[in-house]
Amino acid sequence: MIDDRARILARRDRLRGLANSLDLDAILVTNLVNVRYLTGFTGSNAALLVGPDGTDLLATDGRYTTQAGAEAPDLELLIERACAPALAASASQAGIRRLGYESHVVTVDGLDGLRTAMSPAGPDLELLSIGLAVEALRSIKDTAEIAALRQACAIADLALASLIEAGGLQAGRSEREVGRDLDHRMLSLGAESVSFETIVATGSNSAIPHQRPTDANLVHGDFVKLDFGATFAGYHSDMTRTFVLGSPADWQREIYALVAAAQRLGREALAVGAAVADVDAAARLPIVEAGHGANFSHGLGHGVGLEIHEAPALSALGAGRLEEDMAVTVEPGVYLVGRGGVRIEDTLVVGAVGPDLLTMTSKELVAL
Amino acid sequence: MIDDRARILARRDRLRGLANSLDLDAILVTNLVNVRYLTGFTGSNAALLVGPDGTDLLATDGRYTTQAGAEAPDLELLIERACAPALAASASQAGIRRLGYESHVVTVDGLDGLRTAMSPAGPDLELLSIGLAVEALRSIKDTAEIAALRQACAIADLALASLIEAGGLQAGRSEREVGRDLDHRMLSLGAESVSFETIVATGSNSAIPHQRPTDANLVHGDFVKLDFGATFAGYHSDMTRTFVLGSPADWQREIYALVAAAQRLGREALAVGAAVADVDAAARLPIVEAGHGANFSHGLGHGVGLEIHEAPALSALGAGRLEEDMAVTVEPGVYLVGRGGVRIEDTLVVGAVGPDLLTMTSKELVAL
Repeated sequence: MIDDRARILARRDRLRGLANSLDLDAILVTNLVNVRYLTGFTGSNAALLVGPDGTDLLATDGRYTTQAGAEAPDLELLIERACAPALAASASQAGIRRLGYESHVVTVDGLDGLRTAMSPAGPDLELLSIGLAVEALRSIKDTAEIAALRQACAIADLALASLIEAGGLQAGRSEREVGRDLDHRMLSLGAESVSFETIVATGSNSAIPHQRPTDANLVHGDFVKLDFGATFAGYHSDMTRTFVLGSPADWQREIYALVAAAQRLGREALAVGAAVADVDAAARLPIVEAGHGANFSHGLGHGVGLEIHEAPALSALGAGRLEEDMAVTVEPGVYLVGRGGVRIEDTLVVGAVGPDLLTMTSKELVAL
Repeated sequence: MIDDRARILARRDRLRGLANSLDLDAILVTNLVNVRYLTGFTGSNAALLVGPDGTDLLATDGRYTTQAGAEAPDLELLIERACAPALAASASQAGIRRLGYESHVVTVDGLDGLRTAMSPAGPDLELLSIGLAVEALRSIKDTAEIAALRQACAIADLALASLIEAGGLQAGRSEREVGRDLDHRMLSLGAESVSFETIVATGSNSAIPHQRPTDANLVHGDFVKLDFGATFAGYHSDMTRTFVLGSPADWQREIYALVAAAQRLGREALAVGAAVADVDAAARLPIVEAGHGANFSHGLGHGVGLEIHEAPALSALGAGRLEEDMAVTVEPGVYLVGRGGVRIEDTLVVGAVGPDLLTMTSKELVAL
């Protein structure tokens, strides 16, 4: 369903429209995630030439001939290990003179390679950057992409529920043990993989925003923070919940309530047309007013999709506005060094009648 | 032990020697794996400036301040999200004019960013590629690196032994189930992670050199090919074994014996000073002579270390010669489309008195 060919062709047609508007003869796409988005092909070596209508060409190497035929049956294939130069040579032989490329992905050596590959066709060649054009297309999700994200989020929700029900979050288990348990549950529930290395951070470790699980044991009375996600059909979910093992102390209740309030304000600010910096500010304000501004040391959230972090960034320095069907996280946190920290994170889709919440696990303070 | 500071400083001193020989004032390292090799720092955002003696500078962002201090205590830190431009600016302020950089890693946009960052110091700046200089240093392993590789290989050996002992390789289980079982065993035995997505390929799937596990079930009488590895202290093991479920048919015995003989010849060709193309040829010859040349469609092996694929490549087109303490795989295969395939792979270290075999699982044809 996700790889419905008409929808994928429509993506290439949008890029073709951009090529026309930039007066480019063709565009060479080398960011592998962008190639997947525009073709459905998931191999680890590929490049795509989007040319005048009907001349798109997908390059990959011999390991992937069968897979490319199955995943991208509507595309002509070029089998060659050095995909990008091979497509550049093919383009120049086909008379293409102004070729767009992804200057944020192509290395200095790679650009030299493209120039060399195109040089036999003559000197009047131009290689022009298209910047983050494909990433911008990717920031707006279609129905099937949202369905995949919803399923990825549901797997994470179910895995966490089953972990808690099985008594998996208890004093004496190590962060690493809990992380592997949760990962195993996501995979058993149909996740293709985990979205990123699961964070399980307990006690003072919970005050470190991003920390790999350690051999530290969960201890009664401490916070335990879980930040994790599942992938489904290539799409990533992202969720954070923070619990207390036992009865919360007053300071724990206090910062939990503060972060929960900030997170709600952040979600409520997700409106079509809202400036991303304003969304960040909406959630940040109560934290700053409570004197914890310095303890919320990261941006409010980020786009999610085929990558765990993609456009748009919801941060004070972010530019641009939200559009309908952008998928984003909202994840404020307050981290008290040496004591503990709280982060609460959802994945949502921006919609005309308010955001669509994909991560369904409750956000009340749960005392385990 | 792996992060012994003297050894890591010696690596930077070797790179400093190269800078001197190239008449460079300093080298900016942006390949994250190279930064780890030269500093011990494992964060996901970093760059390193290797300057005149005593002026090395590690850049990372605020998430990693504590971790960088712990992992690279002997290095001065620069905390800045845009690591590479920040180091370039710092270098140019310190009077550096000829700066080496990694042109196979720095993107076209990235090089623009470096130029911009250095421009306030004046026009007489040169950015010069150092090519794969750090990767070349990394291809020769020191004692601690070999110890880490040995441990990573031992974990994979033990995991496979326990999988087989538990009856985990049996008809009716799916490729995916077996893969997860094996992964779980590696993690339980102390692997930090798996080296790459474990390959479990049965029946005709075993004839596809690299195939992700599917829901296909293992079937009596079929080959099952497992290609997998564990990481330990950042170092990757890589091993392939192929089994038959039940009694092997004659054609299975035949190609198994052929691949095993080729693999032995490949291992025996691993001598200090041997041309990598000759090592490939030594293993390829019996396969070609048996009429299966076209069914061995990939190179013989590759270096392993902090990355699963690194220098040197053992292939017909590879250049260069083996040196003492290079760690490599030897992995010939014969793949009969629609029927099944065999690959046998070890990880070894090149040594003066013959190769040191790190993957210890036997290579006799096992009928399960």
